[in-house]
Amino acid sequence: MYSVSVRDHIMIAHSFRGEVFGPAQRLHGATYVVDLELRRHELDDDGLVVDIGLASQTLGEVLSALNYRNLDDEPDFAGRNTTTEYLARVIFDRISTRIRAGQLGTAAAGIDALRVTLHESHVAAASYESELAD
Amino acid sequence: MYSVSVRDHIMIAHSFRGEVFGPAQRLHGATYVVDLELRRHELDDDGLVVDIGLASQTLGEVLSALNYRNLDDEPDFAGRNTTTEYLARVIFDRISTRIRAGQLGTAAAGIDALRVTLHESHVAAASYESELAD
Amino acid sequence: MYSVSVRDHIMIAHSFRGEVFGPAQRLHGATYVVDLELRRHELDDDGLVVDIGLASQTLGEVLSALNYRNLDDEPDFAGRNTTTEYLARVIFDRISTRIRAGQLGTAAAGIDALRVTLHESHVAAASYESELAD
Amino acid sequence: MYSVSVRDHIMIAHSFRGEVFGPAQRLHGATYVVDLELRRHELDDDGLVVDIGLASQTLGEVLSALNYRNLDDEPDFAGRNTTTEYLARVIFDRISTRIRAGQLGTAAAGIDALRVTLHESHVAAASYESELAD
Amino acid sequence: MYSVSVRDHIMIAHSFRGEVFGPAQRLHGATYVVDLELRRHELDDDGLVVDIGLASQTLGEVLSALNYRNLDDEPDFAGRNTTTEYLARVIFDRISTRIRAGQLGTAAAGIDALRVTLHESHVAAASYESELAD
Amino acid sequence: MYSVSVRDHIMIAHSFRGEVFGPAQRLHGATYVVDLELRRHELDDDGLVVDIGLASQTLGEVLSALNYRNLDDEPDFAGRNTTTEYLARVIFDRISTRIRAGQLGTAAAGIDALRVTLHESHVAAASYESELAD
Repeated sequence: MYSVSVRDHIMIAHSFRGEVFGPAQRLHGATYVVDLELRRHELDDDGLVVDIGLASQTLGEVLSALNYRNLDDEPDFAGRNTTTEYLARVIFDRISTRIRAGQLGTAAAGIDALRVTLHESHVAAASYESELAD
Repeated sequence: MYSVSVRDHIMIAHSFRGEVFGPAQRLHGATYVVDLELRRHELDDDGLVVDIGLASQTLGEVLSALNYRNLDDEPDFAGRNTTTEYLARVIFDRISTRIRAGQLGTAAAGIDALRVTLHESHVAAASYESELAD
Repeated sequence: MYSVSVRDHIMIAHSFRGEVFGPAQRLHGATYVVDLELRRHELDDDGLVVDIGLASQTLGEVLSALNYRNLDDEPDFAGRNTTTEYLARVIFDRISTRIRAGQLGTAAAGIDALRVTLHESHVAAASYESELAD
Repeated sequence: MYSVSVRDHIMIAHSFRGEVFGPAQRLHGATYVVDLELRRHELDDDGLVVDIGLASQTLGEVLSALNYRNLDDEPDFAGRNTTTEYLARVIFDRISTRIRAGQLGTAAAGIDALRVTLHESHVAAASYESELAD
Repeated sequence: MYSVSVRDHIMIAHSFRGEVFGPAQRLHGATYVVDLELRRHELDDDGLVVDIGLASQTLGEVLSALNYRNLDDEPDFAGRNTTTEYLARVIFDRISTRIRAGQLGTAAAGIDALRVTLHESHVAAASYESELAD
Repeated sequence: MYSVSVRDHIMIAHSFRGEVFGPAQRLHGATYVVDLELRRHELDDDGLVVDIGLASQTLGEVLSALNYRNLDDEPDFAGRNTTTEYLARVIFDRISTRIRAGQLGTAAAGIDALRVTLHESHVAAASYESELAD
């Protein structure tokens, strides 16, 4: 299995509901350094997993919709705790949709799986990974 | 698959027996920066893989029993080479026991697998990962 | 010149006022990974720049007063943009006050200078450094 | 599953053919920081995944044949784009050959799989991983 | 003294002349991860060392003129060894010129000093720092 | 001011005397990732701060005398606490002696200052820096 990873980041505010979250129930924020890993079994005709420029651009577009925002005010997340692991899944889903829509190029149809990792500090991270449905 | 990772560290002394270890047969030591990754297929009702506070606390307790010690003097390791990969397994087993005992909370019963990684320098690391037995 | 550095982090929300800040005028947030560097010309009688345990504890206390908060609501910062560089100065001042009050031990009277660095992402950081006034 | 990782690096020049590569069609270069991860299900009699000294030495030998070179001039890569993901595979194959030839010691016959990761910057990486054929 | 740092990178080819360079006399290449640190004694009226957006954009422009190139072919470097430390100085000079030309905004006139650091691998880096001439 | 930095590491055992050290009074150990920074005002005739190969080799030799050892048994450190900051000074002195003896080449006579930093974990480091006496 081959993979390629690209990195970008967002800076957001949010709060959590539930006693398990302790002081994180207060409005606070985070920098998430986001790694998008794209995996495939065989390289394309150019010797690539994916056009890394398109992958970076697509990750940037998906993150731009979240960046510099208070996630508590975003309709997409109403009634949800925007935990790091949940956000990893959100970003995974939005990238997957763009791959299926052809935004990473026709060769990207060969991508088999993704892993999205969010580093929230020097001591904590969360991720979501899955094969891509055909 | 979702995952959450937390990081902590220990500083220990030890020595190895066997020619394969060369100068590491002498009494020396290491800082191990330890990553505990917890994995599960579905998030719990709070949108979490695990209560990250309890995960950090449990990792800290497990590491505290090893920290600032000469592992050559620990009865648990008598007759064993405490290699980085072996210690990854020891920490995996001790964390697993605590999860089964409920120390990470009842929701942590949904955790499917763990990976424990020990970074021993900027150029070397070792890990042990496995699904959790029911 | 000798130095010792310790690291911790905070997760805060805030917003900025002024066109120069662009989208960061919206309520958003940040993880700041904070390095406190303490400098002195000569080591103390134990061969130390500072009791590293007390230094870590003091950094933790100073950060705790900021952690998991919306800085826009903090009276101390009323009318101020809590930029990364400004927060580096705030943390510098609060650590300095504690050193003068003896919280890092009597030997810490020999500390000559501090540098506080806040890493806000994998691509940006800010710091404040100065000699300590007698 | 146990693993051990070792790290080294190379500095090479190359160019790519194909419009997808944009400005990287020009002769340019890269530092690749290379992680070799070796995996096995059970430790050997010394409590090891592999003799880490031999693993580092073997990685160094394989990289030495690529280091400080213009890959466009290497006969082994004639007619190929030496993308990061392709080079991960090349290094994987060359390490695998050496394991089978016994260069990592007889105990290394128990190694089950490898992962080779090349970090080309602070924001991009590629890898190839596979089980080892018997 | 306050500082702000921003990070970007370039991927270049080059060769060196002189026996001291050993195998680096061959055409090879490097990724340079570049940190630009800007320092000033007092913050501007917005609480800033510099408009970090303009600083990142300016660093990007200066690096773009070097990126994806064979430095041996650049007239600016004719007859020079483009060592890491020399390139740090080149980037310092080009940033300084842009600050004086007002590209980082009028408030940037208050910047007192710069440090440019190029990381060429996980084990080597070089830098140039100086106060800015008025 | 120009600088070049090289990195290597050691793995040692030791213990400390004095209540200030708490559990670190027990025999334990550390990995120190060591950065040697060499500074000079003007580059030499090859465009270098120093022959980076000789600098790495010299750092390796100095570290080799400490590596895989119990520092409590080393005559050079009898009656001393081998704290991280003290070891930074020891390494500084040993490198300085080698520079004066010409081991880094005749051009290295132009080196003005050194900084030695020891990273003992992902959250703590210490350093010693000074100008070189003529």
